[in-house]
Amino acid sequence: MSEFDTVIRGGTVVTAADTVRADVGIRDGRIVAVAQTLTGGSRQIDASGLLVMPGGIDSHVHLAQPSGEAVMADGFESGTRSAIAGGNTTVIPFALQPRGASLRQSVMDYHREAEGRAYCDYGFHLIISDPTASVLGQELPALVEDGYTSFKVFMTYDDLVLNDRELLEVFDCARGCGALVMVHCEGYDAIRFMTEKLERAGRTAPFFHGASRPQSVEREATHRAISHAELTDVPIMIVHVSGREPMEQIRWAQHKGLRVYGETCPQYVALTEEDMKGLNMDESGGKYVCSPPPRGPADWEAIWEGIRTGVFQTFSSDHCPFRYASETGKLNPKGRTSFRWVPNGIPGVETRLPILFSKGVVEGRITLNQFVALTSTNHARMYGLYPRKGSVAPGFDADLVLWDPNRRETIRQSLLHHGADYTPYEGLAVTGWPVMTLLRGKVVAEEGRILGAPGDGGFLRRERSPYALP
Amino acid sequence: MSEFDTVIRGGTVVTAADTVRADVGIRDGRIVAVAQTLTGGSRQIDASGLLVMPGGIDSHVHLAQPSGEAVMADGFESGTRSAIAGGNTTVIPFALQPRGASLRQSVMDYHREAEGRAYCDYGFHLIISDPTASVLGQELPALVEDGYTSFKVFMTYDDLVLNDRELLEVFDCARGCGALVMVHCEGYDAIRFMTEKLERAGRTAPFFHGASRPQSVEREATHRAISHAELTDVPIMIVHVSGREPMEQIRWAQHKGLRVYGETCPQYVALTEEDMKGLNMDESGGKYVCSPPPRGPADWEAIWEGIRTGVFQTFSSDHCPFRYASETGKLNPKGRTSFRWVPNGIPGVETRLPILFSKGVVEGRITLNQFVALTSTNHARMYGLYPRKGSVAPGFDADLVLWDPNRRETIRQSLLHHGADYTPYEGLAVTGWPVMTLLRGKVVAEEGRILGAPGDGGFLRRERSPYALP
Amino acid sequence: MSEFDTVIRGGTVVTAADTVRADVGIRDGRIVAVAQTLTGGSRQIDASGLLVMPGGIDSHVHLAQPSGEAVMADGFESGTRSAIAGGNTTVIPFALQPRGASLRQSVMDYHREAEGRAYCDYGFHLIISDPTASVLGQELPALVEDGYTSFKVFMTYDDLVLNDRELLEVFDCARGCGALVMVHCEGYDAIRFMTEKLERAGRTAPFFHGASRPQSVEREATHRAISHAELTDVPIMIVHVSGREPMEQIRWAQHKGLRVYGETCPQYVALTEEDMKGLNMDESGGKYVCSPPPRGPADWEAIWEGIRTGVFQTFSSDHCPFRYASETGKLNPKGRTSFRWVPNGIPGVETRLPILFSKGVVEGRITLNQFVALTSTNHARMYGLYPRKGSVAPGFDADLVLWDPNRRETIRQSLLHHGADYTPYEGLAVTGWPVMTLLRGKVVAEEGRILGAPGDGGFLRRERSPYALP
Amino acid sequence: MSEFDTVIRGGTVVTAADTVRADVGIRDGRIVAVAQTLTGGSRQIDASGLLVMPGGIDSHVHLAQPSGEAVMADGFESGTRSAIAGGNTTVIPFALQPRGASLRQSVMDYHREAEGRAYCDYGFHLIISDPTASVLGQELPALVEDGYTSFKVFMTYDDLVLNDRELLEVFDCARGCGALVMVHCEGYDAIRFMTEKLERAGRTAPFFHGASRPQSVEREATHRAISHAELTDVPIMIVHVSGREPMEQIRWAQHKGLRVYGETCPQYVALTEEDMKGLNMDESGGKYVCSPPPRGPADWEAIWEGIRTGVFQTFSSDHCPFRYASETGKLNPKGRTSFRWVPNGIPGVETRLPILFSKGVVEGRITLNQFVALTSTNHARMYGLYPRKGSVAPGFDADLVLWDPNRRETIRQSLLHHGADYTPYEGLAVTGWPVMTLLRGKVVAEEGRILGAPGDGGFLRRERSPYALP
Ligand SMILES: [Zn+2]
Ligand SMILES: [Zn+2]
Ligand SMILES: [Zn+2]
Ligand SMILES: [Zn+2]
Ligand SMILES: [Zn+2]
Ligand SMILES: [Zn+2]
Ligand SMILES: [Zn+2]
Ligand SMILES: [Zn+2]
Repeated sequence: MSEFDTVIRGGTVVTAADTVRADVGIRDGRIVAVAQTLTGGSRQIDASGLLVMPGGIDSHVHLAQPSGEAVMADGFESGTRSAIAGGNTTVIPFALQPRGASLRQSVMDYHREAEGRAYCDYGFHLIISDPTASVLGQELPALVEDGYTSFKVFMTYDDLVLNDRELLEVFDCARGCGALVMVHCEGYDAIRFMTEKLERAGRTAPFFHGASRPQSVEREATHRAISHAELTDVPIMIVHVSGREPMEQIRWAQHKGLRVYGETCPQYVALTEEDMKGLNMDESGGKYVCSPPPRGPADWEAIWEGIRTGVFQTFSSDHCPFRYASETGKLNPKGRTSFRWVPNGIPGVETRLPILFSKGVVEGRITLNQFVALTSTNHARMYGLYPRKGSVAPGFDADLVLWDPNRRETIRQSLLHHGADYTPYEGLAVTGWPVMTLLRGKVVAEEGRILGAPGDGGFLRRERSPYALP
Repeated sequence: MSEFDTVIRGGTVVTAADTVRADVGIRDGRIVAVAQTLTGGSRQIDASGLLVMPGGIDSHVHLAQPSGEAVMADGFESGTRSAIAGGNTTVIPFALQPRGASLRQSVMDYHREAEGRAYCDYGFHLIISDPTASVLGQELPALVEDGYTSFKVFMTYDDLVLNDRELLEVFDCARGCGALVMVHCEGYDAIRFMTEKLERAGRTAPFFHGASRPQSVEREATHRAISHAELTDVPIMIVHVSGREPMEQIRWAQHKGLRVYGETCPQYVALTEEDMKGLNMDESGGKYVCSPPPRGPADWEAIWEGIRTGVFQTFSSDHCPFRYASETGKLNPKGRTSFRWVPNGIPGVETRLPILFSKGVVEGRITLNQFVALTSTNHARMYGLYPRKGSVAPGFDADLVLWDPNRRETIRQSLLHHGADYTPYEGLAVTGWPVMTLLRGKVVAEEGRILGAPGDGGFLRRERSPYALP
Repeated sequence: MSEFDTVIRGGTVVTAADTVRADVGIRDGRIVAVAQTLTGGSRQIDASGLLVMPGGIDSHVHLAQPSGEAVMADGFESGTRSAIAGGNTTVIPFALQPRGASLRQSVMDYHREAEGRAYCDYGFHLIISDPTASVLGQELPALVEDGYTSFKVFMTYDDLVLNDRELLEVFDCARGCGALVMVHCEGYDAIRFMTEKLERAGRTAPFFHGASRPQSVEREATHRAISHAELTDVPIMIVHVSGREPMEQIRWAQHKGLRVYGETCPQYVALTEEDMKGLNMDESGGKYVCSPPPRGPADWEAIWEGIRTGVFQTFSSDHCPFRYASETGKLNPKGRTSFRWVPNGIPGVETRLPILFSKGVVEGRITLNQFVALTSTNHARMYGLYPRKGSVAPGFDADLVLWDPNRRETIRQSLLHHGADYTPYEGLAVTGWPVMTLLRGKVVAEEGRILGAPGDGGFLRRERSPYALP
Repeated sequence: MSEFDTVIRGGTVVTAADTVRADVGIRDGRIVAVAQTLTGGSRQIDASGLLVMPGGIDSHVHLAQPSGEAVMADGFESGTRSAIAGGNTTVIPFALQPRGASLRQSVMDYHREAEGRAYCDYGFHLIISDPTASVLGQELPALVEDGYTSFKVFMTYDDLVLNDRELLEVFDCARGCGALVMVHCEGYDAIRFMTEKLERAGRTAPFFHGASRPQSVEREATHRAISHAELTDVPIMIVHVSGREPMEQIRWAQHKGLRVYGETCPQYVALTEEDMKGLNMDESGGKYVCSPPPRGPADWEAIWEGIRTGVFQTFSSDHCPFRYASETGKLNPKGRTSFRWVPNGIPGVETRLPILFSKGVVEGRITLNQFVALTSTNHARMYGLYPRKGSVAPGFDADLVLWDPNRRETIRQSLLHHGADYTPYEGLAVTGWPVMTLLRGKVVAEEGRILGAPGDGGFLRRERSPYALP
């Protein structure tokens, strides 16, 4: 056996299936050996007492994305910096097509944003807001061929919503080109209807964001998306599922044999509708405004049930950061007049792994191997990065996180590396914390210190998802 | 006890609850006594061996209604003539608001059509196709006050479809004025999508009408309507439910405690998708084209399950007659080019009762009392005609059908009195047949002979539905 | 029309289907006319402002039945006196076969108990505790032929429990002779196991009666009984269903198309497990000890859901009275040592109707007509007394209750006429109260006063249940 | 890196999570390295074009077990020979306690049977047929401590059936000592009842074995076992699940959050009830008699649904072989008189893997990784053999099967190595076949030739199941 650039010694290697005491040998940025004992190695890392896991893949983050008049708190630099500090090695943000724009051009714009700035590897999902004949007939198939093999569509938001006819056309197109469709399931008309009703009643505090999009609105859109997928015979991924009602729709579809997949996020097992009350129904509730909104503890249990029984394949952050105390963030002037103008989204790329580890593994709801599957392996498989990313085995990129399963931390804004000025998880005590992150063999973060550099991360041209095969 | 105009002797009186040997005394068009033995009576009718039941109420018929370029085969005269021959004494057709028109004006137009022509009593449901602010703010509440206490909305059809926002506004308005909303649940966009796809593939025979609106399309719209009703906290009636999938949605809603009601029709227990094949996929399949389309025998069983376990409250005809061999009917020139232009609808007001009696009561699926509930009492209750209509008891209008439970007939076009030139049930053998119909004490039909006259029937101003109470 | 013995004037007649303003004419103990206005009548009763309903039929009461070393607080005299005071006109108690005894002889014994003592009419269900070949081969079929057309079997209790093989044989026999099987569904072995475990842990207070037979034990037995019924293709009635879990089993069976029926009782919508705590876990909790035990408010809602959606056909009292402060009642010497020896059962025949009326009709959960169905009509139908009992229509026995829907009362032991020395509903405020009870035309109770006499009531030979037809 | 005894080169390593091109280095019977390229090795095995998977673990086989008057066709020698030829490296047969016997003594008896005869490693599940106080209080806990950490109980069979009380005591004991309970769920009384009924009707052909234990009987027992497990708060494994009805019970329990696990077998996706008809209802149908009996194609789909959605964790053979043409096998003299005497069970240890691979992986129902999980990893985890057995990773025993995914074979008795004289899968064409089996680094089978020797396999003292932790 040839020499290694780096050997990680003495750790416990965890994959989606197995947990074994083993050394890991790395050469040229790839894992080349997993063995009981490896000697040699230009660099040797002592992983005694630590878990050696595939780096987190966060397949749902928003970076540098325009959002009405608000400005996202993270571009590629701070966003991926935050990601690696949190134990991640790949993110898949979105390249949003503004209405009227070319899809290809939009992708190019995001590449320009990302180029030279990323601390970790990245791919792009597309967001299709304008499914014209040329988009569906030419641009999308070509982009899929070029490695943008998944895209998201929205059933709400003024600038993004597709109507049912458009959804059907887009689904049909996805089927033709083997792309995986991600769907944001909330019903636009219902939300508008409720929003106006609440505003007319003077109910404009951030808390009413939740009332404007109750779970039945998410459930209805979920059922609708599933039905469209059934009609067009195309697999779909329902993203950021928030509670029992949409979860049960997905489960029902899975039992029927439909290829419907599900994603959930930390906010749906750690935040509640009550958080949006802030202090005495004030604007600080805006810190928790995201869509779908956090529900409550009974729904946390439903989400765990879905995780435990395999309804959900991925656990992502839906990192969508805005500054709180900012004219372009949560406290923008219009946002103070109504929840409707509070930008939707919360930061979370850095806290995803610790929250799932602590509430999931440490509290006994999932196994270590499920943790790896939910945070890394399944993302790689779902989005066409496997077998390059997503496991600790020969041939995979040496994207690793060394994890201390016993380390206790309290989540604080001061610990984090994102561009937002707050974290919605402030004060949350967790057990388990990333102590080192390696990207293709290079140590890019250690004990909260960033050792990597902008540009370390590169673009990932993704294969078609095996979940989207005909 | 005072004298009777008419006494019906020796029959077996059936209500939604009871089956008793009793005489029925009528005075001034009303039932005044139900007793073991009644003497006197200007006219005496021998009902020995017959069932004496409340006249059928058909709460879902279309008469004199424009339908694109097609012409409905029945106006009020032939439609109500057919109704009474089939054992009915009340029908509730629709007063359709064309887009851009005043709702009140539309109602007046239908009154003009009906005035002096009806053989049986009638009310009107409204059809709201254009829910403008003035319609919802003024016209609709005023019409509800005037006795038009229910209305139908459509989730499909070019000229009628409401979008989700409109549905929500209309539901909300119904809640405010205590009207009962009937919903035609099929998804417009999905149907258009499928239709164009089928047409592009050259699949234009009437048979493909079914393929253009599969059950998942009806199920999705049903779920959507239920969700909108949940959001606005308003009861709804899902009409013409065709199979297992939408039935299960309604049942699920009922189990959740939502006030969601259901109607089904003869075509969903007696016709199948295969019927639309005609002879070798020819245009005669158009005779069976209606919406939702007939499904198949497995769905018949699901519909019976829903009837048996109380998912459905009413069994209506959805009589919507077109001539087959007519340029303005099924065989219109465009209709020959694609199923899309074949007018949707089949005649059935005259055959509803025999089909349910034969397949339901005689074949042991429902009791006699359920038959009365499904064909009369529940319609009266659901649509605000109770306790004037819908039972055989003192105080009720003497609207009665005398029914021979043992009479065997084979349904033939030659037996029927509608304006259509065919019946989709041609050749269907049934047991049980109406032998006499009384409208407010007057014998209007007997053994297939029409004894009543146009104008015998009058307009029914209806109370608000108790099912729609807040 | 001939003359009447009695005319009830000015009331509102309520049947399972209809609510009408009508007079009721009675002759020779039977209803002979229901009419808008009836003149004449030897006796005239003013029912203005009152509901005229069929007398309550309580198809689940225990009278004069041995129960280990405890003595039942009601024989036929006090039990039926209490029944008529509560608006009932028929009860169906049980004739219990002691092990080793002849079924016929047991029936004769109960006849002797009842003869000349009953204030209302009565039939007998059998209880089969010893299904020998001669019982199943000869006695049971003969007794069914003689009008004892239903019987109960037990899945628990030392002296009564049948094992699965016996249950199957009994079910199979019922199928052959057209009897309706009532099943007490609680698992014997599980209860014994839990009881001994609790006793070993010193948990002997009455409260632990509930813990010894949790809902999963009832659910399991319910599933088992349903499966045995499925295997032998015989309809069964699951009696005294206490909560969501068994309710959902019955609903599941009904949806499968099995003929499984359900009964529930006042204790399952008005008492809770907490009641068994008494005062500080003392022996007064024994007042609420019955089987299955009361559950809690969430289960009340499940029971209402089952009532509303038709899972349950009958609402009975399961009147099974023991004195509290008595050596032969709840406070028997052994009962003080462990819940296991506290006799199971509570009085309720007199309070059944007011509790259902108040919580059901007045609080808006059911209609007046459902009240009549649940308290009278469905019992008559289910147990072969229809059309002699169970409605207000010509030909029926003049068994009537005149009901004041607006009368407010607070249930107190001092108001009641049973033999027990307490009521578990002490202090419960209700709206709606029986003001007069007529048995076959005779006023037997009025405003709490007993006007009838022992022996007024007679034995009812019952027809086979239409629900048990092959 | 040190030297290897054996290196497997050029294959594709498959674990429950990953599929990677890698070499595998073995030393001292253990896997010590998985790497892109491994040099050295005393022996080198070319695995080009082959899958390198963990050897099959068959956690449900019966060897040398008495079965009434029938004699099992396989002892440890032929049974394990058949196992390794089929790609397995571990089996877990049962050590049956005859009633009245000591559990420890029974285990010793089986050890004597196995000692020096096994071609592969083996553990023992216990079978508890006589749960006396000393068995539950002393023998069982001691045996669990000694590595017999799971046991099976039966809800049917004359010599094995436990009643509910016994089941509860045994479950409770399992909870106390951390053993995993496997339950054979079929209802004894129901089977006896049906058997006698069928025999009285002269329905004695092997085909009626199926009719004597329909799916409702299995479903009922499954529900009962789950309820007992719920009451005692103990995890259970429901073995050999045959169809939709029991599968749905397990799923329901899992959704409730109960720790209920499921196993299914090849016969439930490859055989049907019809097979038991033999040739014209003759005795050759006995070749397919096993319990639960094979169901039909609709149930195959339900089983796949359960496999796909994670209801089942393990796929075992339930190898329970009898000779067909033998006085001590299927054609024993009594067996010819009634299905009741046909010994229950079929051979299958050698065909399990090819059937699941072909119908599962090749036909697209499961992934390669699911195949490994279902045939090896999950068995190891479930029964306390992990991380010694069940994966291909450093530290695991070098128990491997080299698999040709493209090899087409037709299953024939002549290919097999078991002691039975037939296979129920005769003529079944499959794709995918084991070409080499290694037990702790030694090649024990290759291309159908047995290279190992009796005694190669050793006893496995098992850890407690992590699934059975409190
Ligand atoms: Zn989204
Ligand atoms: Zn997002
Ligand atoms: Zn319609
Ligand atoms: Zn219609
Ligand atoms: Zn009972
Ligand atoms: Zn009872
Ligand atoms: Zn077994
Ligand atoms: Zn077995």
